[in-house]
Amino acid sequence: MTNIENTIDRIQELIENDAIQQLSDELNSYHSADLADIFQQIKPEERLKCITNIDEEKAADVIEYLPPQLQVEILGDIDNELASRLISKLPHDEAADVLGDMEDDESKAYLDQLPQKFSSEIRELLTYNEDTAGGIMNPLVLTIFDNMTVKEALETIRIKAEKENMELFYVYVVDKNNHLVGVVSLRNLLTTPVHLNISDIMSKDIVKVHVDDYQGHIADIFMKYQFNALPVVDLYNHLKGIVTWDDVQDIVEEETTDEILTSSGIVTDLGDEDEDILTGSLAHSIKARIPWLFITLIGEFVAVTITNKYDHSFKALPIIAAFMPLLAGLGGNIGTQSITLMVRGMSTGQITLSSGWHHIMRETITGLSIGVIFGILVTLVTWGWQHHLELGFIVGIAMCLNMTIATMIGTCTPLILKKINIDPAVASGPVIATTIDVIGLALYLTLVTWYLINI
Amino acid sequence: MTNIENTIDRIQELIENDAIQQLSDELNSYHSADLADIFQQIKPEERLKCITNIDEEKAADVIEYLPPQLQVEILGDIDNELASRLISKLPHDEAADVLGDMEDDESKAYLDQLPQKFSSEIRELLTYNEDTAGGIMNPLVLTIFDNMTVKEALETIRIKAEKENMELFYVYVVDKNNHLVGVVSLRNLLTTPVHLNISDIMSKDIVKVHVDDYQGHIADIFMKYQFNALPVVDLYNHLKGIVTWDDVQDIVEEETTDEILTSSGIVTDLGDEDEDILTGSLAHSIKARIPWLFITLIGEFVAVTITNKYDHSFKALPIIAAFMPLLAGLGGNIGTQSITLMVRGMSTGQITLSSGWHHIMRETITGLSIGVIFGILVTLVTWGWQHHLELGFIVGIAMCLNMTIATMIGTCTPLILKKINIDPAVASGPVIATTIDVIGLALYLTLVTWYLINI
Repeated sequence: MTNIENTIDRIQELIENDAIQQLSDELNSYHSADLADIFQQIKPEERLKCITNIDEEKAADVIEYLPPQLQVEILGDIDNELASRLISKLPHDEAADVLGDMEDDESKAYLDQLPQKFSSEIRELLTYNEDTAGGIMNPLVLTIFDNMTVKEALETIRIKAEKENMELFYVYVVDKNNHLVGVVSLRNLLTTPVHLNISDIMSKDIVKVHVDDYQGHIADIFMKYQFNALPVVDLYNHLKGIVTWDDVQDIVEEETTDEILTSSGIVTDLGDEDEDILTGSLAHSIKARIPWLFITLIGEFVAVTITNKYDHSFKALPIIAAFMPLLAGLGGNIGTQSITLMVRGMSTGQITLSSGWHHIMRETITGLSIGVIFGILVTLVTWGWQHHLELGFIVGIAMCLNMTIATMIGTCTPLILKKINIDPAVASGPVIATTIDVIGLALYLTLVTWYLINI
Repeated sequence: MTNIENTIDRIQELIENDAIQQLSDELNSYHSADLADIFQQIKPEERLKCITNIDEEKAADVIEYLPPQLQVEILGDIDNELASRLISKLPHDEAADVLGDMEDDESKAYLDQLPQKFSSEIRELLTYNEDTAGGIMNPLVLTIFDNMTVKEALETIRIKAEKENMELFYVYVVDKNNHLVGVVSLRNLLTTPVHLNISDIMSKDIVKVHVDDYQGHIADIFMKYQFNALPVVDLYNHLKGIVTWDDVQDIVEEETTDEILTSSGIVTDLGDEDEDILTGSLAHSIKARIPWLFITLIGEFVAVTITNKYDHSFKALPIIAAFMPLLAGLGGNIGTQSITLMVRGMSTGQITLSSGWHHIMRETITGLSIGVIFGILVTLVTWGWQHHLELGFIVGIAMCLNMTIATMIGTCTPLILKKINIDPAVASGPVIATTIDVIGLALYLTLVTWYLINI
């Protein structure tokens, strides 16, 4: 697709001219992922016209690529029977997600209309927490028995994989009670003499996840072992489903977004899971942002109280007030840099608790070095500008100390939080920045007042 | 692996007791990804003892899972012949990465020792920029010809896939001049009657990347279409290699880290690509952090200059100075929240330029609502604490205006930067926070001075 804007213009023109056959041909010629992009940028009534004029297979495919909200919206707009047919064409995990996002009575209505077998499988999926392996997995797994030969296994695959739309990265081996006992790659199956027994060629060392494992854990395992798919088992080692890398991709993106937003003091787990901060209600997005701002407010009132104790100093030498934003600003920035480095390093696994000391030392030296450079700069500028060398020295020393302390606080806090099992991202910029403000200002004003008294 | 600390203790004990056979058995029983984790937490001499006492296949596998620096370090530590053998066991793309990370004379020495065919293929890979498809791809691709039958194709796969360690997600179809003409999934091959012709069952609608495409683009295509692998072609549509999802995984993680660090004002592209901010030299990490801090310094000096013009106000009513950190702090925080939401939303594709206006409006209303709430809070607290209602009003109004403006600046700046094709992450917290500081302080002090003059 060269230019999505042009494509949208053309499609809108076709809709306007009611050129249905042409519209249908045009739409069917695009990849479903491209259509999903287009659907997100046109009006609801145009979307409706489009979805009803593409092949049903493709329509189901497009729905898979759409964000949850839009899935529910589109299925609600089209007629009930078409919606049922489209849902029944989705992979099981996707169908369960879509139905799980709907109102209860709505999803119940669809479940009653769907084919018996499909609907009962979906009902089972809906019993799992949607953030666990059970809520993410596809229950259709290609399995073979451990007492088959390669020839029999290939024959089974030929029949099973054709009948149902199954993922085919690895083939899982089960015993007659559906216990997971091994795994063979398709590559292995195709390249092994056909008379060998599956139990002799399968790998018994299986990395697997449990239906109740949370998505963050699943993503970690995928990232670590770099598999394309992982089997999901229950407490008794019964094979229940498969999680594939594209499911994990979405999880990783979601978790990264949460980490980033949390670090900037936005609350991402307000409980109302269906609401997104960018697209949900205004009340929701205000609620997500107020908590940490409120804590900042309390912290900054502490700073106001401390600062106010030095009012005689402001009266004596008002310019010292003017330097406060400079100190607070740079301390906050260098501190935020350190927090960001630490939180990200811990989430990619580059920083562990055992390497923590090393990073504290390293960051402290970095902070001190930058502090010295900026301290000297500030001293020189203040001297040149206000012709007041002593004031320059005081601001410079305060700057150097403030930057060093800010780096240390920014480095240690995430590590300490991790140590006591609190998500380090919660150390969030706002709180640390406020702490740095309070300490930095107290330090500076103490220095200044000491100078005013002693000179 | 239940507990990595315990495992490490046991391994270190075995090394100390020189129990080589036991060490070897123990190590060979772990998954390579687990061994890679362990290797990152033990001393270099212990690592050396370990790598020389595991099976060579496994050792090569472990090296694949290690970060680039450690790969080079370990290969440099072990004897030259073993290193050559291990390198020759790596997938082509991985071998090229490892050799590309070494000093030129070192990698040349290895290339001369490697098997002729392998070494010439690696040399070709090394000619590509390491951030493009050519630098990431594996040149070993499983191909079949378009004039084969399914039976012949399966036979070819059986032979080729066994001989070379190839990825097997899709099978690519080429004509006799190695032009990419189609793709078949293995699933299709296995489930189609064997007498059919490949050209009749292959998909001709191929999503592919070009050897010179940059990694960010490749990651975008993977995320959009959710493929497991993509073929890489040159200008003439010759099939040159394959990029798989695990390569993309690393790219996505790297790009996310860059985005996060850039947003907090850390420069991630200093040119010396081999240096990492967390593990590289101290000079490197200081260099990465100074530029935006320096710009903040200039901005904050502007704030100092403006503030200093109001020194008579500080003399008259010193407490107004004490409120400055409160205003700057909360303005900075709510502004940072907005930037973060916008930058992240744009990088996940949730926010586009065309939906930009909607988000500006939405954020402005959010900022105003929160501003009103906090304005009232601040007024009440100041009134109760200082028994000075007018001062409370002024601080409250300044707070409300400051928070609203901060939200607007934080929302618009990333959009404007995107519009003029600058990476919005560069809008980085530091600069916006400083801008907000300057505007917020000017506003507040103007209000205060107006009040002092008029009362």
